[in-house]
Amino acid sequence: MSKINNVAIVGGTHGNEFSGVYLINKWQQHPQLIARPSLKVETVFANPKAHGENKRYIDADLNRQFSASNLADFSLANYEQSRAKALHQQLGPKSKPNMDLVIDLHNTTSNMGPTLILLEQTPFYKQLAAYVTMQMPEAVVFLDEPEEDMSNHRFLASCGKYGVLIEVGPQPQSVLRQDVLEQMEQMTGHILDFVELYNQQDLPELPKQVEAFLYLDSIKLPLNDKGERLAMVHSNVQDNDYQPINTGDPIFRTFMGEDICYQGEKTVYPAFINEAAYYDNDLAMSLLDKVYLELE
Amino acid sequence: MSKINNVAIVGGTHGNEFSGVYLINKWQQHPQLIARPSLKVETVFANPKAHGENKRYIDADLNRQFSASNLADFSLANYEQSRAKALHQQLGPKSKPNMDLVIDLHNTTSNMGPTLILLEQTPFYKQLAAYVTMQMPEAVVFLDEPEEDMSNHRFLASCGKYGVLIEVGPQPQSVLRQDVLEQMEQMTGHILDFVELYNQQDLPELPKQVEAFLYLDSIKLPLNDKGERLAMVHSNVQDNDYQPINTGDPIFRTFMGEDICYQGEKTVYPAFINEAAYYDNDLAMSLLDKVYLELE
Repeated sequence: MSKINNVAIVGGTHGNEFSGVYLINKWQQHPQLIARPSLKVETVFANPKAHGENKRYIDADLNRQFSASNLADFSLANYEQSRAKALHQQLGPKSKPNMDLVIDLHNTTSNMGPTLILLEQTPFYKQLAAYVTMQMPEAVVFLDEPEEDMSNHRFLASCGKYGVLIEVGPQPQSVLRQDVLEQMEQMTGHILDFVELYNQQDLPELPKQVEAFLYLDSIKLPLNDKGERLAMVHSNVQDNDYQPINTGDPIFRTFMGEDICYQGEKTVYPAFINEAAYYDNDLAMSLLDKVYLELE
Repeated sequence: MSKINNVAIVGGTHGNEFSGVYLINKWQQHPQLIARPSLKVETVFANPKAHGENKRYIDADLNRQFSASNLADFSLANYEQSRAKALHQQLGPKSKPNMDLVIDLHNTTSNMGPTLILLEQTPFYKQLAAYVTMQMPEAVVFLDEPEEDMSNHRFLASCGKYGVLIEVGPQPQSVLRQDVLEQMEQMTGHILDFVELYNQQDLPELPKQVEAFLYLDSIKLPLNDKGERLAMVHSNVQDNDYQPINTGDPIFRTFMGEDICYQGEKTVYPAFINEAAYYDNDLAMSLLDKVYLELE
């Protein structure tokens, strides 16, 4: 087992997700709040320009720019494509990362509560998920779509040897809610505590199994042939992130008042329901499978 | 009593408040839904350019551009200042309005439910408020800050002989919620029904008194001498629009965990709590007085 020595906590990857921006600022002024004896912890403000303009991004979504091919292509030169290359120098490179762990802080307008998103399912991640949910039972574990390997992953957190996202909602863009900020702060603290105990080989007894939700697919709002929306997310689904959707359940309501029902054969669990940032591409929600992480 | 002949329903005055934009679109395709026998009802898409860019506004808040002095000053030439002059031609002029009633549709990220905002407190408005709250008991009546006269009012709705806003939340910017859209559609329908009955002199018996909330003031978040925020809206206040705040109640929480309490001597009622659009100017909430409208 190799120790985790260097940790980066990243805020403002999306400029209008305020909790991370304000927490980073607080921790820069009070670094003792994130200090742990065996770690060097630093804070990074990922997209200050987008935050200054109160937008998710200036030219392109920063959290989709970290695949090996994007990072190697210097003709990709807009603000976020350039910022990604700089952040990859600072946090990575992926081949030999400066950072053993990257914690990337995000908000969603969806009712997802405090969610821990894991990029992989190796023993380190499973133990982390077990510890965090033991300390914070309201936390949800979300397993990102498996990538062939981390070098092709598009997320900022993939720059580190290990990478996680903390995703907390519901919070409208450009708003700071006390409850959401506190949940993000608590989950960050539990992750840092875990890493300290992991380094000291002093972890408490962890559960053998952890419930998690595995990303399957995203579904779009119904559109007409001009690309105009015909329906909204159904009120039965709205705010019910992680609650089961079964075959035949209504998931959309047309503007004329008709229900459109889920046709899949398997029970699925939605997240990012009606997320504001996904409106450009007409995404309605992500669909997840409920799975269990087995610890050794 | 003079009849109401021409009514304009306006959506998209703020480009990222989606309910009005989608309702206008629906009613343009199905005008029978807003038709009433004694009325000519038209729909107006106030700020299509801002909606196209998924923003509240391009250059300036359109709903602050309708004072007589702004409308007369042709050196004020940015997009919204120009658009305001065009809308004033279409809906006004205030001296002799084309529209007897302007209904302007808005969303808020605050938990204000379906709110009817009245620009004045004349008998027509009081009867309207009484009818709408009788049909829709969850509706809240909000009395705008009294202006010296309507010619100086900055809101779009002041272009009409009468003007109201329908303000429904909570809904994040750029999101369409079924519940919020339905409340906006219902309230619009009740207003049109009222006008039809008013024209026919066939109003039902109305309550003699209607509870309402009168705008007093707006308060800002606590800032340091660099203009940086020191605190957030307190979780005791968050989402509790229209619930009383008494002397000594905590209203802010500093980032270091201390409570800041309300110092006013009089009980007040907040609205627009933590509204995303007011974050540029650090407004935390509006404070209102609870009053009663007396019908003759």
